[in-house]
Amino acid sequence: MFWDHDDDKPREECGVIGVYGHPEASLLTALGLHALQHRGQEACGIATFDGEKFHNERHMGLVGENFGGDLHARLPGHSAIGHNRYSTQGKPALRNIQPIFADLASSGFAVAHNGNITNARALRRDLIEKGAIFQSTMDTEVVLQLVARSPKPLMRDRFQEALTYIEGGYALVGLTNKKLIGARDPIGLRPLVLGKIGEGWVLASETCALDIIGAEFVREIENGEVVIISKDGVESYFPFPRRPEAPCLFEYVYFARPDSVVQGRSVYEVRRRMGNQLARENPADVDVIVPVPDSGVPAAIGFSEASGVPFQLGIIRSHYVGRTFIQPTQSGRQTSISRKHSPNKAVLEGKRVLLVDDSIVRGNTSKRIVKMVRDAGAREVHLRSASPPIVHPDFYGIDMAAQSELIAANHSLEEMRDFLGVESLGFLSVPGLYAAIGVERNVEMPQFSDHCFTGCYPTRLVDHMRDESSKERQLSLLD
Amino acid sequence: MFWDHDDDKPREECGVIGVYGHPEASLLTALGLHALQHRGQEACGIATFDGEKFHNERHMGLVGENFGGDLHARLPGHSAIGHNRYSTQGKPALRNIQPIFADLASSGFAVAHNGNITNARALRRDLIEKGAIFQSTMDTEVVLQLVARSPKPLMRDRFQEALTYIEGGYALVGLTNKKLIGARDPIGLRPLVLGKIGEGWVLASETCALDIIGAEFVREIENGEVVIISKDGVESYFPFPRRPEAPCLFEYVYFARPDSVVQGRSVYEVRRRMGNQLARENPADVDVIVPVPDSGVPAAIGFSEASGVPFQLGIIRSHYVGRTFIQPTQSGRQTSISRKHSPNKAVLEGKRVLLVDDSIVRGNTSKRIVKMVRDAGAREVHLRSASPPIVHPDFYGIDMAAQSELIAANHSLEEMRDFLGVESLGFLSVPGLYAAIGVERNVEMPQFSDHCFTGCYPTRLVDHMRDESSKERQLSLLD
Amino acid sequence: MFWDHDDDKPREECGVIGVYGHPEASLLTALGLHALQHRGQEACGIATFDGEKFHNERHMGLVGENFGGDLHARLPGHSAIGHNRYSTQGKPALRNIQPIFADLASSGFAVAHNGNITNARALRRDLIEKGAIFQSTMDTEVVLQLVARSPKPLMRDRFQEALTYIEGGYALVGLTNKKLIGARDPIGLRPLVLGKIGEGWVLASETCALDIIGAEFVREIENGEVVIISKDGVESYFPFPRRPEAPCLFEYVYFARPDSVVQGRSVYEVRRRMGNQLARENPADVDVIVPVPDSGVPAAIGFSEASGVPFQLGIIRSHYVGRTFIQPTQSGRQTSISRKHSPNKAVLEGKRVLLVDDSIVRGNTSKRIVKMVRDAGAREVHLRSASPPIVHPDFYGIDMAAQSELIAANHSLEEMRDFLGVESLGFLSVPGLYAAIGVERNVEMPQFSDHCFTGCYPTRLVDHMRDESSKERQLSLLD
Amino acid sequence: MFWDHDDDKPREECGVIGVYGHPEASLLTALGLHALQHRGQEACGIATFDGEKFHNERHMGLVGENFGGDLHARLPGHSAIGHNRYSTQGKPALRNIQPIFADLASSGFAVAHNGNITNARALRRDLIEKGAIFQSTMDTEVVLQLVARSPKPLMRDRFQEALTYIEGGYALVGLTNKKLIGARDPIGLRPLVLGKIGEGWVLASETCALDIIGAEFVREIENGEVVIISKDGVESYFPFPRRPEAPCLFEYVYFARPDSVVQGRSVYEVRRRMGNQLARENPADVDVIVPVPDSGVPAAIGFSEASGVPFQLGIIRSHYVGRTFIQPTQSGRQTSISRKHSPNKAVLEGKRVLLVDDSIVRGNTSKRIVKMVRDAGAREVHLRSASPPIVHPDFYGIDMAAQSELIAANHSLEEMRDFLGVESLGFLSVPGLYAAIGVERNVEMPQFSDHCFTGCYPTRLVDHMRDESSKERQLSLLD
Repeated sequence: MFWDHDDDKPREECGVIGVYGHPEASLLTALGLHALQHRGQEACGIATFDGEKFHNERHMGLVGENFGGDLHARLPGHSAIGHNRYSTQGKPALRNIQPIFADLASSGFAVAHNGNITNARALRRDLIEKGAIFQSTMDTEVVLQLVARSPKPLMRDRFQEALTYIEGGYALVGLTNKKLIGARDPIGLRPLVLGKIGEGWVLASETCALDIIGAEFVREIENGEVVIISKDGVESYFPFPRRPEAPCLFEYVYFARPDSVVQGRSVYEVRRRMGNQLARENPADVDVIVPVPDSGVPAAIGFSEASGVPFQLGIIRSHYVGRTFIQPTQSGRQTSISRKHSPNKAVLEGKRVLLVDDSIVRGNTSKRIVKMVRDAGAREVHLRSASPPIVHPDFYGIDMAAQSELIAANHSLEEMRDFLGVESLGFLSVPGLYAAIGVERNVEMPQFSDHCFTGCYPTRLVDHMRDESSKERQLSLLD
Repeated sequence: MFWDHDDDKPREECGVIGVYGHPEASLLTALGLHALQHRGQEACGIATFDGEKFHNERHMGLVGENFGGDLHARLPGHSAIGHNRYSTQGKPALRNIQPIFADLASSGFAVAHNGNITNARALRRDLIEKGAIFQSTMDTEVVLQLVARSPKPLMRDRFQEALTYIEGGYALVGLTNKKLIGARDPIGLRPLVLGKIGEGWVLASETCALDIIGAEFVREIENGEVVIISKDGVESYFPFPRRPEAPCLFEYVYFARPDSVVQGRSVYEVRRRMGNQLARENPADVDVIVPVPDSGVPAAIGFSEASGVPFQLGIIRSHYVGRTFIQPTQSGRQTSISRKHSPNKAVLEGKRVLLVDDSIVRGNTSKRIVKMVRDAGAREVHLRSASPPIVHPDFYGIDMAAQSELIAANHSLEEMRDFLGVESLGFLSVPGLYAAIGVERNVEMPQFSDHCFTGCYPTRLVDHMRDESSKERQLSLLD
Repeated sequence: MFWDHDDDKPREECGVIGVYGHPEASLLTALGLHALQHRGQEACGIATFDGEKFHNERHMGLVGENFGGDLHARLPGHSAIGHNRYSTQGKPALRNIQPIFADLASSGFAVAHNGNITNARALRRDLIEKGAIFQSTMDTEVVLQLVARSPKPLMRDRFQEALTYIEGGYALVGLTNKKLIGARDPIGLRPLVLGKIGEGWVLASETCALDIIGAEFVREIENGEVVIISKDGVESYFPFPRRPEAPCLFEYVYFARPDSVVQGRSVYEVRRRMGNQLARENPADVDVIVPVPDSGVPAAIGFSEASGVPFQLGIIRSHYVGRTFIQPTQSGRQTSISRKHSPNKAVLEGKRVLLVDDSIVRGNTSKRIVKMVRDAGAREVHLRSASPPIVHPDFYGIDMAAQSELIAANHSLEEMRDFLGVESLGFLSVPGLYAAIGVERNVEMPQFSDHCFTGCYPTRLVDHMRDESSKERQLSLLD
Repeated sequence: MFWDHDDDKPREECGVIGVYGHPEASLLTALGLHALQHRGQEACGIATFDGEKFHNERHMGLVGENFGGDLHARLPGHSAIGHNRYSTQGKPALRNIQPIFADLASSGFAVAHNGNITNARALRRDLIEKGAIFQSTMDTEVVLQLVARSPKPLMRDRFQEALTYIEGGYALVGLTNKKLIGARDPIGLRPLVLGKIGEGWVLASETCALDIIGAEFVREIENGEVVIISKDGVESYFPFPRRPEAPCLFEYVYFARPDSVVQGRSVYEVRRRMGNQLARENPADVDVIVPVPDSGVPAAIGFSEASGVPFQLGIIRSHYVGRTFIQPTQSGRQTSISRKHSPNKAVLEGKRVLLVDDSIVRGNTSKRIVKMVRDAGAREVHLRSASPPIVHPDFYGIDMAAQSELIAANHSLEEMRDFLGVESLGFLSVPGLYAAIGVERNVEMPQFSDHCFTGCYPTRLVDHMRDESSKERQLSLLD
């Protein structure tokens, strides 16, 4: 069972990895990026330091297409960082692929990050006023520029000072001529784990990247923690005031690979239990449980377990959909053809079918799949979402629809059921989601960032608020 | 759930499709090839006729990478044929990609085929003696040359005459300036189905190609049948002496997509029943049934149904493995890392695990997966193959190991169990396989070509016998 | 002084070379093709035989761009043939680049040619009727097909038999597993010379290709001669009835490189003497002699010698004009800008300028250059053509304008002078051209093919006549 | 006659052009770069501003290969700057191609330059200390960074402030959202001219770039002048203390195209007079004057005029030598083959030949050519250099040999004559060179930078002196 993400689903920008002190650092980094490919398929890059020089390669496309062959000759060195990018707008320029690199006064410095810096545009404007020249349009470069301008002599201190300026959710890896640096935002929105391989160390977005290279999981980097890995081992710093963590719930719902362990819990097991809970909350009298592949599979298995209704592959998913496949320029009939999902008539024909998906964002893909299943002969089609209704947008690195596009933000359950064309529709509840994870939601201070479901944003949003206020200003100017 | 084929598995060369009488013939052909991509991922090609001229594009790589954009402008016309190739040796030259085309006296003629002509080398030698110049090294070109040289005036007759020279298993599609031609070998080893879309017609290797373009399934082309599709409709010819059909069993075991219907049976259902039967023939006292993804999934679901043991995703499959991914040039440790399959520890740890795979060929991949599962903490690992032991090679278009490499051809069950490192090993029986299909095997004249399991080859093998005899001659010369 | 050909000038398709018996055959072939690059810049190819296998590489673009690096590793072998192509229509497909190759019954056979087979289309039609499949649309392939079909057992005889079918002007090189073959048409329209390098042999279109590799000039291949070069040396055959040679005059006028020796005469010296003669036939009272670079330079030097008027570089030529340079899509003003020729005002301003060009075909380039020179301040502009008026088209491999486009075929001298915008215009006479070569024209049987100037075509023109007669038939059908 | 530069000759890095206020700014820029192609063939770039956004394209290779097609659609706008690069080390990265661009606080700013900033490394080190991040390794970026950091509010003032920090020889063009900027170093080492086209303005390295686009020459930018071109016309500033100009003599000797006008003098005429003077200073009793093409042609014509000895093309130059042509990896014999120059035996054989070249740097190419001419049968070979002996290296943008490689810096005339293998050798004298230009050399303060011939460097050399002193330090450390 392979793991891939769907166009209509919320998406995170980027997976990161760093390797320190291993003779095949670039190879391990490439393998780790390969395991993290589900977090970003548009572009990838690796930077290494070979004891004398930095090397940096950045490419459009998949890891496996770009980092084959004799990688160590191209990217030599015992330390490396790597990055997978999911681009949110059009075709990214090469200069907008990470890691980004600069020669600083004390050392070269390469950096890559996952997440979103919510005050990046404001900081960028300030830095340009002060004479900074940006080589990219990525928010990551703000970190680089802040480090470059810090008056502190030690890189360790320069980096921490830089972090105190930035807000948002992020997991960062940085590489100097002596050190591998990792950092996680104050509430731990984006994930980062530490592993050990031989005498070397690994930082990665998910444990599946440790597994593929045979590294041992050590621990998660804590929220607000900065780790400096050098020949003296791992030093830990906490440059921010300590506060409780609030990792993003979407790692469980959608982002993480099912074989990863997040916050000590198997993602697969959490998703299976989400299916169990969903069956208890939203049962249905049906003949067969069919997952929307791939991300709906664990919850569908869980639903089948709890309901006793058989699990069958009623939808086959093709994975050969390249970036440039046939555009639907033709007659209306063509556009309704799903090229990614195909119905398995033998399972669906004449049956009462319950579809399980991980989430419903805009609803367009779901609607298309429902129609496809019904056209294949299903007698009834029921739809269940293994996560609660998404009613608020994200600003921490998930490339999701604007609020106006979120189906659940703008429609009642009955309206949605009608739009999607199903006999019944059900969502997992917020408490049910917490139950599947195994905790009870703390209403005062939720243990996870669940703003998409609840509207409780865990940080202020500088750039967003400026945008909104400038919109208002523009509007008032029109009067 | 996506569908892909594994490197260690028997593979068929090629999927074919033909479209007649549709204003978007090349687009339908591309979509159909996309649905047939599991039959060949190395190269693809499309030829069309636009009323005046033939157009032919052939590329290395996937359909979706090559046939996007404004396809109709590049490949105009109301009729088209297409081909997916699985290359068996190295990097194929462009000239060895199908369809192949030639200007014949009466018309241009494009042709593509799936299968293997077992006397192609002998025919080629004869044709060269007579002054023929070959533009490729493909056996398909023999058909083209035979058609070119036929003294008959009508293309219909030339084509049928050509077929009388060739032996082996094949499904052919051909395109002239007036007609779409389809043909299936005398015993129907390779599949070909007929569909209808609007006023137009479609020929394809599998029904899933009809489904993706919204074409209606009409019927299978019969064994030994030639169909000539023109503005006058579908004419049918039987140039060979009639004999019973014997389609290749591997379509059910491995080749066909689970949502295809082969010989009137759902492939998914047959595979699920193979799992049922396998559970009855080879039960085991275990905690969890885990499929080897993707091809083992339907049988594993069937095994779970019949045994009552839960089905879980204990192995996660990455699909981002490109053709050029990282080569294992490094230390021994790396080579044991499976980059395609990852263990899902939460499912496997401490469990008695039963793995279900569709077949076991050389055994190397199975051995690696078993080790991976055990390393992930499984207490016991049992392995079941949803097909019988493969003990004989194929010569009809399946690119399988030589007999000396087939694990079951050279080892006892106990030796295999030992080699694979499992607590127990079981194969579906030949009668059990027929039972899952729903027929009882006719020992005198089996209803399917099952030579890989039984050694009963349904045709003579000219090229193969010459090779063998020339080997003997060479040996005797050494004396 | 470099040597290049102009867009508005008659052009020959192709230079050829063959090397036999040299350990660096492909390198010598590439260097020779480089020296012959002025004969064809669109595409190039090299085929070699390494004692076991044939190798063939064909590319769009220049020799230096395609055949660098470790050529011997890519194209091993002690014998090779090569080809430069000047494409006459659009972007040629790779399959239309030479050498072309086929596996024949007795041996592989690669062939390349310069010239034009005037009955190729008729032969092609006949061969297709007989079942031949063509891999290209080149007339060269007719030779290959005829050789393939010859019933004779020896390649030597098959090749000579094939030649008896073809008509036109050609210089052919062929490569088998044992031999290098060269052939020149019955009247020797296209050139071919024989050279020796160490123990090996070389065939080439011009002596400049021998010079660059340090080969010694042996002799010209005679008209109607076939040479078979093998380990036994050079054998010579004359398969046609012997007749006097009549090489194409354009080698002297335009095609050959000035440092080549054609028919025993230095091309540079002939051109310089053409300039001498031109000055005697068409003097003018001017201040400076300015060549139209590059092909007008030797004649301009000769004109200066004979007239005593100083030679100066009044026009500078840029050679950095690639195949895809800026298209003149803009305002009218831009189109009159010559991007290839620039005026050197210091030489032209206030002067009476006499321009010397090698020939005038359509007249458009000349007109543009005259205007440019006048705009740069020339007080008077006189134009002299170092060859006679071109009044008839060529059919032997020169890609020249159709008769309707030839300025001299449709206008009087005064009309041309007026169109070109010059104070005076003069052409070398036909007797003057022969005088510069050093022979007196034999009116009964001219020593050179001078049909472009005189209309005396030295062969019949099968394809052309069929075209003309089919045009007539079409016309009569319209009545 | 085309114009190209030889590998063994001193080379300047770069040609620049800027266009303001023309609807086809990018097309004019591309045509101008094409005319300046002799100043840099490795890479080229164009930046435009379309009223809203900046566009920037930079490519490896020739202008004609990269900037064809519908250029205005790709690079829209009424103002543009462009750059040709001659790379001095290996394969330059894309980021090291100009123009370079940055978003500054007030506006975007693109800049390109010709020449060399002799304190660039020192400035770069200082800027990095202050937190600047460089996107390239080019000295040009120092200007960009200095402008970015200037505290002045107006771009005009920021730019002039930046110039006060830099030393060396340069001609700069810059583009903002409102203005086109041009600047020439305090002594005018590198050239820059101003032209007018319709309502628009053009800046370019040479007048030949004005000619190709039909722009009218207005004047040279003065030494130490900054021009700001905007809708208000051309403003002129002189930010440096005024001092006499001292343009680089090599523009006359080698760099500029012969049809350009430099400092009011036709380059062709100056070169021809250099040939006249050379004949007077170094006569010889010979039969023929032969230029080393292309750069030796005007002086050879001048030598012929003054000596009365005929001028003939004794060496033919091929221009089809691509960047990747055949490497001489083979036997010794091959390496002596000149692939660029071919002897024209008809001119050379049995003759006393006098070769005229523009200059002699290392002497290797000259030696090879002399040998080639002698091998072609010349009875005597005499060599004349139309410039004085080069005895000192350049630091202002000419990529010339180190002093240890300069033949004239390390050998007597007799030693050189012996090394080159000629009957006689002669150089133009320094006073003779000035005479050809038409001025008498002012010994106190030469009117031209002639340091290569005289050792009189017109500026201090910060980076170079640091290198030298650090070398000394290293040496002393070894004691």
